[in-house]
Amino acid sequence: MGFNVSQKLIKSHLLSGDMTPGEEIGLKIDQTLTQDATGTMVMLELESMGLDYAKTEASCQYVDHNLIQEDSKNPDDHLFLESAAKKFGLYYSRPGNGVSHPVHMQYLAKPGKTLLGSDSHTCANGCMGMLAIGTGGIDVAMAIAGEPYYVKMPQIWGIKLTGELPDWVSAKDVILELLRRHDVKGGVGKILEYYGPGLDSLSAMDRHVIANMGAELGATTSVFPSDEETKRFLTSQGREGDWIELKADKDASYDLEEEINLSELEPLIAKPSSPGNVVPVREIAGEPIYQSYIGSSANPGYRDFAIAAEMVKGRHVADGVSLDINPSSRQILVDLVQNSHIAALLKAGARLHQAGCNGCIGMGQAPATGRNSLRTTPRNFPGRSGTKEDSVFLCSPETAAASALTGKITDPRTLDMSYPEVSDPENPTRDEQLLEQPLPFEKAKNIRLEKGPNIASIPNMDPLPDEMDIPILLKVGDNISTDEILAGGARVLPYRSNLPEISKFTFEIIDETYYDRAMSTKDTGGHAIIGGYNYGQGSSREHAALAPRYLGLRAVIVKDFARIHWQNLVNFGVLPLTFVNEEDYELLKQHDVLQFRDIHEQIQRKNEFTVTLKEKNQEIPVRHTLSKRQIDVLLKGGVINWVKQRNSVTS
Amino acid sequence: MGFNVSQKLIKSHLLSGDMTPGEEIGLKIDQTLTQDATGTMVMLELESMGLDYAKTEASCQYVDHNLIQEDSKNPDDHLFLESAAKKFGLYYSRPGNGVSHPVHMQYLAKPGKTLLGSDSHTCANGCMGMLAIGTGGIDVAMAIAGEPYYVKMPQIWGIKLTGELPDWVSAKDVILELLRRHDVKGGVGKILEYYGPGLDSLSAMDRHVIANMGAELGATTSVFPSDEETKRFLTSQGREGDWIELKADKDASYDLEEEINLSELEPLIAKPSSPGNVVPVREIAGEPIYQSYIGSSANPGYRDFAIAAEMVKGRHVADGVSLDINPSSRQILVDLVQNSHIAALLKAGARLHQAGCNGCIGMGQAPATGRNSLRTTPRNFPGRSGTKEDSVFLCSPETAAASALTGKITDPRTLDMSYPEVSDPENPTRDEQLLEQPLPFEKAKNIRLEKGPNIASIPNMDPLPDEMDIPILLKVGDNISTDEILAGGARVLPYRSNLPEISKFTFEIIDETYYDRAMSTKDTGGHAIIGGYNYGQGSSREHAALAPRYLGLRAVIVKDFARIHWQNLVNFGVLPLTFVNEEDYELLKQHDVLQFRDIHEQIQRKNEFTVTLKEKNQEIPVRHTLSKRQIDVLLKGGVINWVKQRNSVTS
Repeated sequence: MGFNVSQKLIKSHLLSGDMTPGEEIGLKIDQTLTQDATGTMVMLELESMGLDYAKTEASCQYVDHNLIQEDSKNPDDHLFLESAAKKFGLYYSRPGNGVSHPVHMQYLAKPGKTLLGSDSHTCANGCMGMLAIGTGGIDVAMAIAGEPYYVKMPQIWGIKLTGELPDWVSAKDVILELLRRHDVKGGVGKILEYYGPGLDSLSAMDRHVIANMGAELGATTSVFPSDEETKRFLTSQGREGDWIELKADKDASYDLEEEINLSELEPLIAKPSSPGNVVPVREIAGEPIYQSYIGSSANPGYRDFAIAAEMVKGRHVADGVSLDINPSSRQILVDLVQNSHIAALLKAGARLHQAGCNGCIGMGQAPATGRNSLRTTPRNFPGRSGTKEDSVFLCSPETAAASALTGKITDPRTLDMSYPEVSDPENPTRDEQLLEQPLPFEKAKNIRLEKGPNIASIPNMDPLPDEMDIPILLKVGDNISTDEILAGGARVLPYRSNLPEISKFTFEIIDETYYDRAMSTKDTGGHAIIGGYNYGQGSSREHAALAPRYLGLRAVIVKDFARIHWQNLVNFGVLPLTFVNEEDYELLKQHDVLQFRDIHEQIQRKNEFTVTLKEKNQEIPVRHTLSKRQIDVLLKGGVINWVKQRNSVTS
Repeated sequence: MGFNVSQKLIKSHLLSGDMTPGEEIGLKIDQTLTQDATGTMVMLELESMGLDYAKTEASCQYVDHNLIQEDSKNPDDHLFLESAAKKFGLYYSRPGNGVSHPVHMQYLAKPGKTLLGSDSHTCANGCMGMLAIGTGGIDVAMAIAGEPYYVKMPQIWGIKLTGELPDWVSAKDVILELLRRHDVKGGVGKILEYYGPGLDSLSAMDRHVIANMGAELGATTSVFPSDEETKRFLTSQGREGDWIELKADKDASYDLEEEINLSELEPLIAKPSSPGNVVPVREIAGEPIYQSYIGSSANPGYRDFAIAAEMVKGRHVADGVSLDINPSSRQILVDLVQNSHIAALLKAGARLHQAGCNGCIGMGQAPATGRNSLRTTPRNFPGRSGTKEDSVFLCSPETAAASALTGKITDPRTLDMSYPEVSDPENPTRDEQLLEQPLPFEKAKNIRLEKGPNIASIPNMDPLPDEMDIPILLKVGDNISTDEILAGGARVLPYRSNLPEISKFTFEIIDETYYDRAMSTKDTGGHAIIGGYNYGQGSSREHAALAPRYLGLRAVIVKDFARIHWQNLVNFGVLPLTFVNEEDYELLKQHDVLQFRDIHEQIQRKNEFTVTLKEKNQEIPVRHTLSKRQIDVLLKGGVINWVKQRNSVTS
């Protein structure tokens, strides 16, 4: 039997395990990507491991998140990252170059390769026939150091695309349709692999849009074949030599099957406050808006801005509407400038921001109180925009631009306008000096890390005790995102390289008393958290595991986990458990004390064991799905201890 | 005897007083300008006065300061300001349109008119043959309500320009030369009036650069004639009808005289941390830099960006250097885009920010710890950049661009490059819909103010007591700026419409304990502050008077005051006194108690009286220079009480 693209990518990089869905496999990682909000911790981890030089084929440190320099913390981090890139043999992408994912696609992505990134939207480069996976920073640090990446073998979900997108409907609507059908955990444990005749009309960047928001379905990643369009894209970048063909075998099959007829799609929109809350735009048309936001990793393409520019050209945005243009990369911005699109947007009244993640990660651009914000970004979790009780909608550039003109949510098909034709520039701007190149080892070894005063070392973590009596400090519901566990935004992100400081913001959106209460458990045995389905969805930030762990979190019991956060908990020595009987969720209350006994033996011997609800002396059966390696990591108190101990044995 | 331009402008607007330097005069105000950081308070003041519609010829509310929307506070303010503009019959300039001063110049400035603005750089429009004065917000509110503006008649300082600027030397170096000669209080009580043959080679925008930083000399304003160049500028804006000629009479004279031979100037730079700390660039060439910053109201012209673009075209900025491009207005940005200058800057590695004040007011773009930042901005007061103990230098775009290329402070004459020729576009972009037009009164009267939850009313202020025993809570040195009294920046500015909240930041750069100590005096009689020369220089923010007043400040005794802050103190009921014997400054210490007796009679009867240093039972002679009107304002506890009482009498 033949292989699909995902299986080919995995098979060619398999270092351990077998390709049975649910089993842990170890993969060789060819490339890595780190951004600044997660990368400072990765670089500190590399330092703490004593790495001398990256073992990957290409690793790039991007600066795209923390671009607002309210004080010296963010620029100090940028200089630290530049020095770390030089020291460890990484590429470095300076502030203003743009968002990691499109820049990586333009400069480094190669079909057939694996890419591991400390950003949940790393999967976007699945558009290039890569196996591109987002994960916690420590996993990326390990990959840079040449270690395998361990992940459960996903199911491969074949998504057949047929037909062709109608006017006013674009790639964003394709992924919104999948979210409409399957919601935010529909992709958990799966790779979404796209194939079929519908692909022919989707550009490489359209595929990027679709692959990007696979993250919002909870998928391990998304994969597209490497075909003639991939070749066209690489050729336009002067990188035709990096192209190989990579397609599913004719007799390939998929664990799961789905079909989308592109011709039948219409403009869609995700209502507040979940990317899965999708309805047709026409159903909510007419609602007044404050903001229309174009850009982000979820609509980074030249055409995404160009179409908006063509739509507003010669017109004015409605009074009181903030039309925020967030270019995704320097290269695309230059092309948009040179082809008059930026002038058209500016003349219409748009605000042009620097290239980067910006408001998508709450780095500015928060909407006004109680006002609607339409965004082409991937996420609308509560408060992520920076405004409490915000009202953020996710949509295509077409819908966002149409709504900016009218001042209310507008199905672009109802504008009295013919659909503008735009396509990628044939010879896009390119600059081989855009990325600072890795230093050769002989030079790199003399580089010193530039640490500003806000850059703190990672505190030591103790091993997992064998016995614990710990209170439930917090009980939360379903779909808790890492934004709610530890917010992003201009207020919090500058502390990403300072664990004691950033931990003060933990869970503040959900319960402002958590930090103080958790601190009081820090040195008295710790605490537990109870949650529902899809716990830890969203951003890959490992700080969402690291900060509560620092404050004494020892165990999380939920109905199920989002993949990356589950891995992050393990990596930092927090026991991730699920209920055997989901109705036990109802039984547990905040302040109840859970008794864990013989933990070490229990988790090594079997996947199910019990904890005792002290108040009622009642046994609660729980389950884990840890590999042997992960159990070893947990017992040692996390992967940093694990690596240190291994290195001290081998050295 | 003939009149100079300043005298003509004053004479044609004189409502009270006579034109003797030092005497209070009342002026008719034709136009006003407010920005968002000061404007929210102005609009609240208009509301509290019960104004129905602006009495000025043209008043515009700009949004250029608080552009970082970390949460809902700033966007709520923007919507409040837009609603206030509609309600009170003002123009409104939306976020992204750019900095008030160049936009006002392009769209509303008219030779022969008076302009009052709640921004200290309002004087920039003196380049247009206007009398343009920066002042506290309440003065602008009064002007919008049709009241005269009261100011001491300044001396007129004629500055004769001869010669022509050499290559690599530009308008910024002219004003830096004046600062080099006369330092930051050299212009106090004076209008700087430029004349002479050197004017012929200075464009209207060059004159804007020079007029802008007159504020840094402490001048009341700067004035240029309205000549053929002014006509050319207005014509290029499609506003030739707004031009009138306005020149000094042939037999005009000046109170003071100065000459600058432009041909003899060289590239200059103000070292940290004062705009008066000026040396030739060559003296400090070679120092490594972190940042090179182009833009702001002090170099807002098309040519200022174009020259930098021509210099970096085809080159790359040095590794590790952040080249920050801050367009000053939408119009100029569009022209720079259309003439390929923005593409050149982007390709060289620059970061392109949205049009506005940005890092100049500490709204992002803070430099890294301990690193040098070169800026074309007007001010480098300590900490204004957002970074504690920062190291900010002020220079021309030529010097900034040269240094970005080399990574160190560089005299642009030492580059191996011929001086690029750039000039203003002949037909600049213009959009009559750029500013939202004032609503007619019939529509305006139905508009409701949109107040977000952070917009607080101004608390009531009590009248000046007749007797006070108040401790000295703070003793400071010379040249204390309003940035040090109450910082700007992304952390503080969002509270500009919320006095109780913003007052928490008062004096924190100088003494973090001030707020708590002051709060404890708030309801127990208040406190005093002692200072040196030029107290309250810099920004016009009335919050620097209003916040300490709210915390109990009742009297300030210093060697001398900066003009705007002195007026602001009076406007909010704080007694501004100077030492009769400056050596008494040495006598007074923090915690000493000052006894004021019979204040009401004393300040009405004479300009000098004594306060008693309680500890030593020693008399300290002090002086005031208040007009009768100001004494009346003070006794009533500030101008808001004064207006309210007057209105209740007349209504």
